[in-house]
Amino acid sequence: MKEKGLLIVLSGPSGVGKGTVRKELFSHPNTTYEYSISMTTRKPREGELDGFDYFFKTREEFEQLIAQDKLLEWAEFVGNYYGTPVDYVRDTINDGRDVFLEIEVQGARQIREKFPEGLFIFLAPPSLSELQSRLVHRGTESDSVIANRLETARKELEMMNLYDYVVENDHVERACERIHAIVLAEHLRRDRVEARYKKMLEVE
Amino acid sequence: MKEKGLLIVLSGPSGVGKGTVRKELFSHPNTTYEYSISMTTRKPREGELDGFDYFFKTREEFEQLIAQDKLLEWAEFVGNYYGTPVDYVRDTINDGRDVFLEIEVQGARQIREKFPEGLFIFLAPPSLSELQSRLVHRGTESDSVIANRLETARKELEMMNLYDYVVENDHVERACERIHAIVLAEHLRRDRVEARYKKMLEVE
Repeated sequence: MKEKGLLIVLSGPSGVGKGTVRKELFSHPNTTYEYSISMTTRKPREGELDGFDYFFKTREEFEQLIAQDKLLEWAEFVGNYYGTPVDYVRDTINDGRDVFLEIEVQGARQIREKFPEGLFIFLAPPSLSELQSRLVHRGTESDSVIANRLETARKELEMMNLYDYVVENDHVERACERIHAIVLAEHLRRDRVEARYKKMLEVE
Repeated sequence: MKEKGLLIVLSGPSGVGKGTVRKELFSHPNTTYEYSISMTTRKPREGELDGFDYFFKTREEFEQLIAQDKLLEWAEFVGNYYGTPVDYVRDTINDGRDVFLEIEVQGARQIREKFPEGLFIFLAPPSLSELQSRLVHRGTESDSVIANRLETARKELEMMNLYDYVVENDHVERACERIHAIVLAEHLRRDRVEARYKKMLEVE
């Protein structure tokens, strides 16, 4: 009878403020998403707990999980593996809770392939609005500044291709409100509600 | 450069509280939707203004508009025609403003055919949640009460088929919050934002 949770993936260009938005989201008492715990081969630091801060694994264990396709995405970084365990995500979703992941664009791309039904949100710098005003007040800016902005806009446009929604990070609290609205709306989609009705009527 | 507005259609079974939700939505100072003005052949009542309360037309004018396919939907009711003029809706949307329509399910069906890109929201009575608790506490209810509720649920399920979202009207303010979230999320869909980017980059 339980409705499945959502996999919410927040990504975007580096430096856009993904971590700040994620922290703000999770500081809200009404946020009901579960934060997806990563898996790593690096040693736990003082005070870090297995299954809370990270799932800590040996290189051998990690490589076995890669071989068994047990990671939604993974990368090697400064000699250590980091990844997102698929079982944790699936178990939480099947239990009806939403899982939230904040991740680099490369990782998001890997997840989209394995988990296309996820909710992919692209966090964009406020460059589009900025660019609009720059184009309007063209006389006051050098051509090279405008050319630079246009190049950035083109790159963002290419990157956002795999995403379902685009949230401009013009202000961290407004960005969070938009993310909450997206998640709420997603839960109200007719196909989800219909599935609940149908499940209930089948019971009879 | 202007982004198109949305056509928001709120509908649902009669008696569900569509009018109450619409009034609550439009009492909010932050609501930016335009309320779609209907067209009718009935005589204006004292104080009613043409182009504000209704567009008032003669039967001949109305029938000509039907023949010219100038109505998104129409119906005859107690000897008078009522309908939604397509030009007003298209002009407002092309001007970048969202248009809001509260309408019976028959009218919503006509609109979906002519304007499939609209945002169709089904306002549902809180019968699903009620039904769930009734099924759980089955021992305390007669079989006929439960059978009745199941029949209602089946009818709602059939009706909601054409809609994009389902909002349960368990509480008018919560229903309004959900509608606001849906409209906000819809504006953040990647294809809409992407279209804005592309339009801007073409300018160069």
